[in-house]
Formats: sequence, C-alpha cells, structure tokens
Amino acid sequence: MDANSIGIVETKFFTFAQPPNEMHLESGVKLGPITLAYETYGQLNERGDNALLITHALSGDAHVAGYYSPNDPKPGWWDFMVGPGRPFDTNKYFVVCSNVLGGCKGSTGPTSTNPATGKPYNLNFPVVTIGDMVKAQRELVRHLNISKLHAVVGGSMGGMQALEWAIKYPDMVAAALPIATTSRLNAQGIAFDEVGRQAIYADANWKNGDYSDYNLIPAQGLSVARMLAHITYLSEESMHEKFGRRLQEKERYGYDFSTDFEVESYLRYQGESFIKRFDANTYLYISKAIDYFDLSRDYGSLENAFKNVQAKFLVLSFTSDWLFTTAQAKEIVRALMVNGKHVTFCEIPSNYGHDSFLLRNACMEKMIADFLSYANA
Amino acid sequence: MDANSIGIVETKFFTFAQPPNEMHLESGVKLGPITLAYETYGQLNERGDNALLITHALSGDAHVAGYYSPNDPKPGWWDFMVGPGRPFDTNKYFVVCSNVLGGCKGSTGPTSTNPATGKPYNLNFPVVTIGDMVKAQRELVRHLNISKLHAVVGGSMGGMQALEWAIKYPDMVAAALPIATTSRLNAQGIAFDEVGRQAIYADANWKNGDYSDYNLIPAQGLSVARMLAHITYLSEESMHEKFGRRLQEKERYGYDFSTDFEVESYLRYQGESFIKRFDANTYLYISKAIDYFDLSRDYGSLENAFKNVQAKFLVLSFTSDWLFTTAQAKEIVRALMVNGKHVTFCEIPSNYGHDSFLLRNACMEKMIADFLSYANA
Repeated sequence: MDANSIGIVETKFFTFAQPPNEMHLESGVKLGPITLAYETYGQLNERGDNALLITHALSGDAHVAGYYSPNDPKPGWWDFMVGPGRPFDTNKYFVVCSNVLGGCKGSTGPTSTNPATGKPYNLNFPVVTIGDMVKAQRELVRHLNISKLHAVVGGSMGGMQALEWAIKYPDMVAAALPIATTSRLNAQGIAFDEVGRQAIYADANWKNGDYSDYNLIPAQGLSVARMLAHITYLSEESMHEKFGRRLQEKERYGYDFSTDFEVESYLRYQGESFIKRFDANTYLYISKAIDYFDLSRDYGSLENAFKNVQAKFLVLSFTSDWLFTTAQAKEIVRALMVNGKHVTFCEIPSNYGHDSFLLRNACMEKMIADFLSYANA
Repeated sequence: MDANSIGIVETKFFTFAQPPNEMHLESGVKLGPITLAYETYGQLNERGDNALLITHALSGDAHVAGYYSPNDPKPGWWDFMVGPGRPFDTNKYFVVCSNVLGGCKGSTGPTSTNPATGKPYNLNFPVVTIGDMVKAQRELVRHLNISKLHAVVGGSMGGMQALEWAIKYPDMVAAALPIATTSRLNAQGIAFDEVGRQAIYADANWKNGDYSDYNLIPAQGLSVARMLAHITYLSEESMHEKFGRRLQEKERYGYDFSTDFEVESYLRYQGESFIKRFDANTYLYISKAIDYFDLSRDYGSLENAFKNVQAKFLVLSFTSDWLFTTAQAKEIVRALMVNGKHVTFCEIPSNYGHDSFLLRNACMEKMIADFLSYANA
C-alpha cells in the first residue's frame, strides 16, 4: 500500500424507495425498496459541490479504490486513479461510487429477495435501463447531501451513465467524462451481448433463471459469455503481443481437445474466475440495459439529447478499442459541438483495446486530472 | 435455373486408404478407410491439366454449384462462380470440389462409423490438419486422373488448403488462389474458435461427444458457437446497414428477454438453421484444424514455406474482413515476393466482411476469371 493509496475502505448501503413510494422504472414497473451499495472517499466540502461520481462498467462494483483490510491482496478496480495526489484526488474531491441498480455487488438486483415472495427475484426482477440506474444514483447523491457533482466519470457502461447524468440532471453535473463509450450500442455490440445471453440460457443449470432454487450455478454458460465478451475487451494487437500462437506448457500440438494455446488457457481462466465473482441472471440484466441504451431513440436525435446539458465534457476514446470506437466517440463530440457545448476530445494511443481505460495510461491520467482541475475554474 | 447454371449435379464418393494401407496423419495416427464426397462439373481434357480444385470453408461441402433436382430450391454454395461462361468456366475447366477429410457432408469424419467398433468415431476420431485434408484430396486428384491442377481456389479455410496444396505438391499446382485467408490463425482467431468449442462442451447434451448414443444433439451449444462465429464473418458496417438497432416486429422495447432487435432474431435464425445442417463434433474438429494451421511453424518461416512453390498466385482480401485481414494477406504476398514468385494481389472493396467471398462481387469475379485465363498462358 503506497502513500497515495486511499487506504482501508468500507462498503456502505443506502436503502430508499420504500413502498408505497417505489421508484418508477422506464419500463413502467414500480420497484422498491431499493438498496445501493456504495463507497465514498475524501470529504464533502461545505457547499457540497466537490463530489466526483464514478460510474462502473458491466461487471464493476462500488469498490473503486483502496483495500478492505490490511491484508487484502487486491485494491479496488480503478485504484490507481483514486487517492491523495491521484487524478481523482481525495485531498480535493469527495469521491463516490455505487454499484448499479440491478447489480449483484450489494445493490438491489435479480439476486435480491423479492419482498412479495420472500424468495430471490431471479427473472421476476424488472428489466432496468441505464436511465433507471442513474435515477437511483440521484437518490444516493441527494442522501449524501451533494448539491452539485463536480464531475461524473465512467468508462464503457459507466460512460453511458455519465452521459445520462448530464442529460437527465443538467443542473446537477458540472463536468461529464464519458470514456470508451457510445451514445448507443451498435448492431455488432447487441449481437455479441445476445450470444452471451444465449450461452447462459443454454446452460442446463440455468433452469429459466431459477438456479438458486436448486443450489446450482449456470457456470459453463456464464463462463462462455465472459470468454466471448473478454475477446471484445482486448485488441487483436494486444492478444498477439500477449499470447501470439504460443503453446501452453507443451512443445508440440496435443492433437486433442485439451488446451493447446496460451490464449485458450487465459480465456478459460477468465471464464472460471468470473463465475466466482458474478451472477448469471445479473449478467442478463446488465447486458440488456446496455443494449437498450440509445440516446438518439430516447430524445429523437443525439443533437437533441444534448440540447440542455450544462456540463463541460471530456470525451476520451482509445485507438485500439473496437467495441466502442473513436468513431462512436466522435458522434458524441459532434452532437455536443452542434449544440455549442464545451467539449474536449482526445483519442488516446493504446494497444489494449476497450479495457485500456482500466489500465495505467499517463495520457489518460493527466488529461483527466487537468480537466477536473480546470473545467470549473 | 438460368442458361449459365451447371444444371443438375450429383455427389460422388471415393474411398481409399483401405487397411493395411491407411493414411498417415500429421498427428502420427493412421486412418483408413477414408471416403471423400466430391462433385465434378465439366470435362477433363486429354492432358489432364484443365482441372480446377475448389476447396471449401469451415461449414462448406462438395456441393459448390448446380442443383440436385429440377425442384431443388437452392443451388450449391458458390453457384454464381461455376458454370458455362462463369469465372470457373465449365466449358474450359474440369471443376472438382470435395468435402474435407473430417467433415460431415459425406466424407470420413467424427460422425462416420469407426470400423474398429462399429459405432461412430465421435471423439475417437483423430484430430486432422489442413495438411491431412490436402493429402486426402491428393488421392482424389490421382483417382480422377488429373495430371496437374490448373488452379486450386478457396476462401477462408479453403484458402489455407490452396496454400498448403501449392507448398506440399508444387509440381501439381499451376495456379493458387487463396482468398480471404491467412498463413496462420492469430490469437484472436484461436480465441473465438475456443469459445465456440467451449459453448459446445457446455451443452449438457454433448455428453463428451457421445450424444448420438443417446439420440441427442447439443443443439444449443452448437447454435451459440455458430452465432458467435457468424458475427466474425460479417462486418460492423454490414450489420449496421442490414439491422442497425431496428426492433423485431415491435414498436417499443419488450423489457424482457424475448427478442427485441432484428439482429438478435437474425442470429438466432442462423444458429437454428446451422444445427440442422452441421454436426457439433465435426465443428470441434474442423475449428481445431484451422487453429493448428501455421505455415511459419511448419516450415520455420513463411518465406521458407514458399521456397519451392511453382504456382502463380492470386491473393485476394476484402476491405471489411476483420477475421482474415488484408494485413494477413499481405504477409503471404510479401513472403512470395521475397522468394521471387509470381504473385498478384488485390484488396477488394466490400462492406460484407469475411463472408464477402461468398457473395457476388464484380471485381472478384473478373479478377479470378482473368487470372485463370492468363496465369498459365
């Protein structure tokens, strides 16, 4: 744990939307009570306007930085970004991150108990959207007495939330930093998500979502979904550099269906470790929320979506990201410019594909730190 | 059926490698007897040197052109290329296509009866390579009294066979046309194949390959594998043009896990129709053969692989093919040039991704027809 680490942190929980005051979802369904798991680091100032809201990607959680205990082997998922002197400087900012509505890391989602039945929701959980996730976060932000967010920052699905925040609550967001994201998932992205879901449905242990009733886990289906998604998070270049065609602990081909190549072994490991930390039904719900995200559809056009935003924007993409490409980032930038909004854009050189935003990158770190310092000056 | 159709055709069968004269596979295993399903159109000339061998891709078969009956609703898979006056002009050429060794369309493969047990081979079938497929085709070519192939032509895995033919039997091949192919599968390609195989393994009906014993088919696993592969055969552009984010017969999102988007419906259809025409174990074997293909490994370097080729080459790639890219095609071209070989290369504009070679394309058709006419002049 180095001097810039935020140190020991804990996850907290906020429950709201108690019946009969349930939250109205975009689907028309009412949901409550709702719990959000969240973490905060640093101090909120008196004006309540120095908060950074970090929004997470598909499989993320509230634990963005720090350690749960002195012996915790691994810090939070964006630890290098958060702490005293780091880009999300906890000497300056009050950093907040919550697990999304629909998640499986402490927030209300398909694994939660359905108060109507006393059993897990499973597929009775309503389909939620990025808009619903943001609406729930709005309640948390109110609960924390934040008067205005200094910035909302997120990569991938987190970037979708950052866009949604700036549009839905324009007077609450001083700056928005959508990173490696898109204003709407394209057909290829929907296709990959659907194949992942089909892999889960195909697992005999899935039992139409009721696997927990049988003490089962659709491990193989979820693993296949994750392996597939993982390919889309990397780039061809980075896979070539990292694995090439190297064989896994053998000199010649096995001429069987065991593991021949390192890349196969790596992917299997990714699949197997994912099933220990994520839930299959939740994967269905979160991927569906991503598929549904479409600002053009919701607001008639992307230009129209940004008409009333007040936030200054920093839009970042990565050269080798083929899931949410620079071309898609530029659509956001163009629509903001058409509206005369303040927008800074940078395509950051990186070979690591979509996952680039999760890895240390001096250019990204400096751009973000500087933007946060100067955006509201 | 238009005037340029080859008309009614039939599939024939050739059996060889009868014990004790089994074929030696690259793995070291001996296999026999071996049957290849094949079709021929046109007439072999007296010198036996006007034959075109067409080699097929992963899920292809011997039925490259024509109809099985007057009422057959669908012609062979490359029908527009084969017939009188078409690029593979049956007035000039004797066209041959065989289902690969290891296939499930009439050739010996995992679904064939193992003479040692009287039951299907299933996973007791030996792993075969692209080299083994070509070695078996060599027997067919001998059987047909072909003295020299005017050309070997194939796309994707068919292109790998074309390369292998020109290298392994240099005096038998006057021209080689590897199309939308690579000299070795990259890490990303292996990764996609492995996820497809894992989807099949994950199907409870797979039963470690012995599903036929139970009268079962691992339909969902094979369907997931095909859906995934299908995404890699298309391009982001073509999916955007064809489907975009259009909804499938609905005005608003369903907020459930039925089909929302046209692209989902299309993919499901692709998966479902594939399971009716292809075998799951065969999918494992053929994808493994593709993964193993690596001319650099087999010959020390790609330059060295081409040292003794005599064929003239036409190498074709497609602009939007992200599975076997133009960069990979250029590696082949460069290695041929280093050896001072005759090579013509063209990157053909097409939005249809890897599958472009299976679709009508005036540039491709003309390049191939002209090359075949002039290559041996």
